[in-house]
Amino acid sequence: MKPVMIINGPNLGRLGAREPEVYGLVDHAALAAACYQWGEELGWQVSVHQLDDEAAIVALLHQAADQAIPVILNPAAFTHYSYALRDAVAQVPQVIEVHLTNPAARETFRQTSVISAVVEGTIAGFGIDSYRLALAAL
Amino acid sequence: MKPVMIINGPNLGRLGAREPEVYGLVDHAALAAACYQWGEELGWQVSVHQLDDEAAIVALLHQAADQAIPVILNPAAFTHYSYALRDAVAQVPQVIEVHLTNPAARETFRQTSVISAVVEGTIAGFGIDSYRLALAAL
Amino acid sequence: MKPVMIINGPNLGRLGAREPEVYGLVDHAALAAACYQWGEELGWQVSVHQLDDEAAIVALLHQAADQAIPVILNPAAFTHYSYALRDAVAQVPQVIEVHLTNPAARETFRQTSVISAVVEGTIAGFGIDSYRLALAAL
Amino acid sequence: MKPVMIINGPNLGRLGAREPEVYGLVDHAALAAACYQWGEELGWQVSVHQLDDEAAIVALLHQAADQAIPVILNPAAFTHYSYALRDAVAQVPQVIEVHLTNPAARETFRQTSVISAVVEGTIAGFGIDSYRLALAAL
Amino acid sequence: MKPVMIINGPNLGRLGAREPEVYGLVDHAALAAACYQWGEELGWQVSVHQLDDEAAIVALLHQAADQAIPVILNPAAFTHYSYALRDAVAQVPQVIEVHLTNPAARETFRQTSVISAVVEGTIAGFGIDSYRLALAAL
Amino acid sequence: MKPVMIINGPNLGRLGAREPEVYGLVDHAALAAACYQWGEELGWQVSVHQLDDEAAIVALLHQAADQAIPVILNPAAFTHYSYALRDAVAQVPQVIEVHLTNPAARETFRQTSVISAVVEGTIAGFGIDSYRLALAAL
Amino acid sequence: MKPVMIINGPNLGRLGAREPEVYGLVDHAALAAACYQWGEELGWQVSVHQLDDEAAIVALLHQAADQAIPVILNPAAFTHYSYALRDAVAQVPQVIEVHLTNPAARETFRQTSVISAVVEGTIAGFGIDSYRLALAAL
Amino acid sequence: MKPVMIINGPNLGRLGAREPEVYGLVDHAALAAACYQWGEELGWQVSVHQLDDEAAIVALLHQAADQAIPVILNPAAFTHYSYALRDAVAQVPQVIEVHLTNPAARETFRQTSVISAVVEGTIAGFGIDSYRLALAAL
Amino acid sequence: MKPVMIINGPNLGRLGAREPEVYGLVDHAALAAACYQWGEELGWQVSVHQLDDEAAIVALLHQAADQAIPVILNPAAFTHYSYALRDAVAQVPQVIEVHLTNPAARETFRQTSVISAVVEGTIAGFGIDSYRLALAAL
Amino acid sequence: MKPVMIINGPNLGRLGAREPEVYGLVDHAALAAACYQWGEELGWQVSVHQLDDEAAIVALLHQAADQAIPVILNPAAFTHYSYALRDAVAQVPQVIEVHLTNPAARETFRQTSVISAVVEGTIAGFGIDSYRLALAAL
Amino acid sequence: MKPVMIINGPNLGRLGAREPEVYGLVDHAALAAACYQWGEELGWQVSVHQLDDEAAIVALLHQAADQAIPVILNPAAFTHYSYALRDAVAQVPQVIEVHLTNPAARETFRQTSVISAVVEGTIAGFGIDSYRLALAAL
Amino acid sequence: MKPVMIINGPNLGRLGAREPEVYGLVDHAALAAACYQWGEELGWQVSVHQLDDEAAIVALLHQAADQAIPVILNPAAFTHYSYALRDAVAQVPQVIEVHLTNPAARETFRQTSVISAVVEGTIAGFGIDSYRLALAAL
Repeated sequence: MKPVMIINGPNLGRLGAREPEVYGLVDHAALAAACYQWGEELGWQVSVHQLDDEAAIVALLHQAADQAIPVILNPAAFTHYSYALRDAVAQVPQVIEVHLTNPAARETFRQTSVISAVVEGTIAGFGIDSYRLALAAL
Repeated sequence: MKPVMIINGPNLGRLGAREPEVYGLVDHAALAAACYQWGEELGWQVSVHQLDDEAAIVALLHQAADQAIPVILNPAAFTHYSYALRDAVAQVPQVIEVHLTNPAARETFRQTSVISAVVEGTIAGFGIDSYRLALAAL
Repeated sequence: MKPVMIINGPNLGRLGAREPEVYGLVDHAALAAACYQWGEELGWQVSVHQLDDEAAIVALLHQAADQAIPVILNPAAFTHYSYALRDAVAQVPQVIEVHLTNPAARETFRQTSVISAVVEGTIAGFGIDSYRLALAAL
Repeated sequence: MKPVMIINGPNLGRLGAREPEVYGLVDHAALAAACYQWGEELGWQVSVHQLDDEAAIVALLHQAADQAIPVILNPAAFTHYSYALRDAVAQVPQVIEVHLTNPAARETFRQTSVISAVVEGTIAGFGIDSYRLALAAL
Repeated sequence: MKPVMIINGPNLGRLGAREPEVYGLVDHAALAAACYQWGEELGWQVSVHQLDDEAAIVALLHQAADQAIPVILNPAAFTHYSYALRDAVAQVPQVIEVHLTNPAARETFRQTSVISAVVEGTIAGFGIDSYRLALAAL
Repeated sequence: MKPVMIINGPNLGRLGAREPEVYGLVDHAALAAACYQWGEELGWQVSVHQLDDEAAIVALLHQAADQAIPVILNPAAFTHYSYALRDAVAQVPQVIEVHLTNPAARETFRQTSVISAVVEGTIAGFGIDSYRLALAAL
Repeated sequence: MKPVMIINGPNLGRLGAREPEVYGLVDHAALAAACYQWGEELGWQVSVHQLDDEAAIVALLHQAADQAIPVILNPAAFTHYSYALRDAVAQVPQVIEVHLTNPAARETFRQTSVISAVVEGTIAGFGIDSYRLALAAL
Repeated sequence: MKPVMIINGPNLGRLGAREPEVYGLVDHAALAAACYQWGEELGWQVSVHQLDDEAAIVALLHQAADQAIPVILNPAAFTHYSYALRDAVAQVPQVIEVHLTNPAARETFRQTSVISAVVEGTIAGFGIDSYRLALAAL
Repeated sequence: MKPVMIINGPNLGRLGAREPEVYGLVDHAALAAACYQWGEELGWQVSVHQLDDEAAIVALLHQAADQAIPVILNPAAFTHYSYALRDAVAQVPQVIEVHLTNPAARETFRQTSVISAVVEGTIAGFGIDSYRLALAAL
Repeated sequence: MKPVMIINGPNLGRLGAREPEVYGLVDHAALAAACYQWGEELGWQVSVHQLDDEAAIVALLHQAADQAIPVILNPAAFTHYSYALRDAVAQVPQVIEVHLTNPAARETFRQTSVISAVVEGTIAGFGIDSYRLALAAL
Repeated sequence: MKPVMIINGPNLGRLGAREPEVYGLVDHAALAAACYQWGEELGWQVSVHQLDDEAAIVALLHQAADQAIPVILNPAAFTHYSYALRDAVAQVPQVIEVHLTNPAARETFRQTSVISAVVEGTIAGFGIDSYRLALAAL
Repeated sequence: MKPVMIINGPNLGRLGAREPEVYGLVDHAALAAACYQWGEELGWQVSVHQLDDEAAIVALLHQAADQAIPVILNPAAFTHYSYALRDAVAQVPQVIEVHLTNPAARETFRQTSVISAVVEGTIAGFGIDSYRLALAAL
């Protein structure tokens, strides 16, 4: 099985507890478990990372770049301002941007992504199924 | 099998011939064929429509609204200005917006969608696989 | 009795079914019936047209221009982008723009009208009474 | 007969004298007389107020709010900047915004209304008939 | 003689009747006749199309793309918003954008063209001579 | 006890009656009473003024400037456009801007203050406690 | 001697006391006295008005319009937002806008004048000599 | 005594040394000491944290969210861009935003807060007294 | 008599011939003659320069700076873009900006002055009397 | 033969050498020669001027205005900022703006023309044939 | 030898591997080695730091501020949004901003620097020579 | 020794006399002398040109383009609007933009450069040392 990295940005470790009417009741452990299982079904060795720290995500992306591992990235709030992430994403051969919710239907600031221009594709709005679809898209 | 409508907007009938370095070499018939097959595998009775006419797409969306059929919509150029489509989309219970390419990596005007705020989710950038993922997302 | 044309734009054929909490429960047939009756009371021979097609509305406006028939126009979503309608409206001697709802209290994009600058007046926010008032205004 | 307040904002006392090619030759007394008569015909006890003073209009609106009297308001130049009026309007159960002319066909600054989002509806462009239509709309 | 398509957008069928102080007194039939004659003189087999329908113009452009026929396009009001036309124009090897009037000297909205970036050249402001110049430019 | 002026702008006399879900149920008399008591506790001779009139507030601010009395100012709707207030505020040695609600969580226009740049500090979002805190801040 | 009205807007009564490093040490009485004297020299019967109240200034402008008296207007802070003043100014045959200071060298908001487009001319930046020059300009 | 967290963002550890003409001469230790004492007086068990690291502040906010501890937050430079902080703040039941200085009187970029829309209230401009007032506001 | 330089920018040599309905019938020689005479009356030794060349005007301003001669400058079209003039003006101890017409009542681009922020004052809208007033202002 | 002036702005003397992939290999002498010949064929006495100096072009335009000679103007980089040229162009009875390339398909700044609003028409994008078409358009 | 700190921001540790057509083939170790040698030649004791972590850079800048060590800073992606860095930079007596490439010739977002206003000077576009020049500039 | 051109734009001939608190006390002759000496040390035959005339600078740049001489350019005020310079710069193989001061720390208009996108690199903020560094950069 080939490896794939799933990287979840700031505050996503709070899933289940954080605004459940927006983000649903599934917590991050359950999200990770689902991803592991979907990966197994689709022949991917999934690793799931949740990090609130910009530099730590940049480091993971560097590792993915060095090892040419595809990445499924939910940049969370970093979507809207982290050009450091953008520059790191641009070095990875294949990155898919995912979002649990549909940013276009939320606050204005969530409609600006500084990441999207350097990813292969985006999948947004399907809850945790966004990850399943991203795995299927690889 | 439950029905699902795939609606492709203006100029998508030209796939294969139109800017193949951007949109690939698969033509619309092949796209439709792939969608029918994916639908069969996933248990959906797929119908594929390609229409250059705004009013005709609105009519199809009305039909989907009346019959509560989910829709996979590639609004093509209408993405950027057709509020008529937007108002029609808002009446359909479940619409997924798809794009063959990643609009965020193209011209500025392609980064504005007047449709996105009223769909369930968006999938963009995976070529014709965007449709497969949308079928999987339903 | 002198003739007057009432033209309703895209998605208005869906009245009653479409977002009734916004547009009310009256359907388009009932709206038309009310207009016919109000016209009779006020001495106007009313014809009511509902069209989702931009070109078809343009054609009706051309006919109104040729025959110098006044028009009551609810451009619906075309309000926000159809300069083709605008150019056609500018040829008709007397056009009144009506809206069922108050666009100023809704989404931002509904606050831009590319039509308003070339009509005689606008009436907005009174439900189907907007049409009655427009007939009275002629 | 139920009471209704008509409130005319700054410079409207100058009707007839002020830019007659824009605002017509009817002066404010004649406008008021017409409104009284239309009110009588429609069963409304009309009172007409013309005030150049922002605070005085706010006070009238407070009174309307306390007594639940509907208001027909021509905010004139206050349309474009008086958030004080806006906050007062928001307290009155039913306010209709009227304009003699069609602001969309005039200077750019006349196309911004800070009042419209909190009224029930707007009627603009029909000269003094705008008031008649507003009375009919109540 | 090699074929060339002249395509005139919405409301141009109204030439002669529509705002003659802006667009002149020549009607569309006379415009077409002049184009046929100029074509004959210059060795082009001209066909002239006037269409108010966006989808119909897109279809003609597709035909021009398939047959590699050069197009002289007056997009009229579609100039300002029809990205569907833009995407169709981009497929035709040679398109010249023409305007009867000089848009830069008219309303602000007429100064935005979503078409110009994908044409070979533009000719604007010479009345029906704009078409003669475009034929000469081919 | 040293004097301090509390000045409340337009519509604040309507507290309790006006949008109680936003502004709470306390009316202006109760607000004033609370301020008098807090003042007593903190050693300030409080005077509370509620004025819908811009010029009257300007006059009070002039008086405060002449007598070097500190001011706690809730400019209400004047916050967003009254440069006259701004120029008057700039003459008073010490002005604290208060708001009952948190403007940043409300409509866009409430997020612009033309006053803030010339006050000593701002306190917003604590209901009538905003005034207590302002008294404590002096 | 023919009459001329000098109207000074909000906060100008505070001259001498207000930010003397910006507005100088001359107070309003001295300003008025100088204007009277200059008027006498130039053959004008000057009346000087200082008003903080928008409606009161509007009333004075109405009086000037009725009597065709030329006006020298320093709108002070009203320069930047009072469309009520603008509409009143537009009715007076001859208005000259004056400023003590040069607004272009101050805060950004002072660089927008909603009045200037309807005056005959403007004189700014010469301290109280701006008034002398305006009298000379009549 | 109930706990309350005071969190100070980047560069606030430099108080006393950093631009003392702007931020005053009190250093961070003294600020913390004052907060501890004020907390004691008001019955709060204060903990003071100064962190330059975005992720570390996010972690503290998560802890506050889990334990339902109120937070007094001075986001410092993060005020202007850290949507990660914003998303974390939105999870804490009660957050008060404080600033030592009045951002509205400083550089333009300091006038944008991406945090304010999700806090209960803001207190700005009172030097270290901003913290005392925030404690009093709880 | 002390010297003063009057500098007129591009196209002002065309006075009398150029758009006389805007600029009047007085030609530049007559303007200069009037300025000489006004200068004599007011005790100034006037020199009048009309130059279409940006660098030549910059050179004159340098000369004025070296000799500390006051300047009356009509920058004409350079008003709107010549930062080279701006930097030169900033070196002259006393510059008054004049305009024949009132730019605020003309095209939008004429309402931006890159010069005004560095002059002592501006006089606009009085035809050639603008120069007389500027001489009186010195 | 009647005279016509062709005026080429800054850097156009470098044709052939400058970015030949954009501007082609024809140098300015060849361009002038072609224009002379086309003029002869069409009955115009052509004079061709290439000037890098704004004031020199203004002077030529003044001469054209005095003698009522039509002008074909390629303002080159002056297109984007020279209001001095604009004011001079406005005095010439007939000016046609030409461009070798299609500015709409190049850098953003090339899409702003401060000249276009005062010319009769524009021809852009046909290489040196733009001049031939302009001669034909006269 | 006096100390100087060179601080390289996020992703600069990837030099040589990252987009070599943009950033060249020299890796970070070689860059550091070159800087050490240049420092030796110019009499500076150079220390080179590469950090992806915003807070870590802030800490280094604090250290530089405390010890009054000059800094050569390549903020990389932080250039465009890190106000935390900006506030830290403002405390260091001498900071020079360097960039390997010329941001003005790249994507739009790279043309905004939130750092530049608080540095002594900037050097951009010379590859690793930018550092040599910065050392020479100290 | 190989030749290099140093070109200084408008008002730079005034160094020493012009705003010495901004630009220092060194005059242009001294600047040139320093450049000659630095050139000699670094093996460059330096020629220094100071020109207030846009066309004259364009001509020098053409000469540099023809002879492939590198240029060090301080465009001064032309930085902000001269697209003519930009087009000329784009033809020279190697141009370095220098500024005495740091534009990012000055007025807003100085933060826009229309030149930077076509130069090799920029050096700003080091006084006359900016030139020394540019020579070292060649």
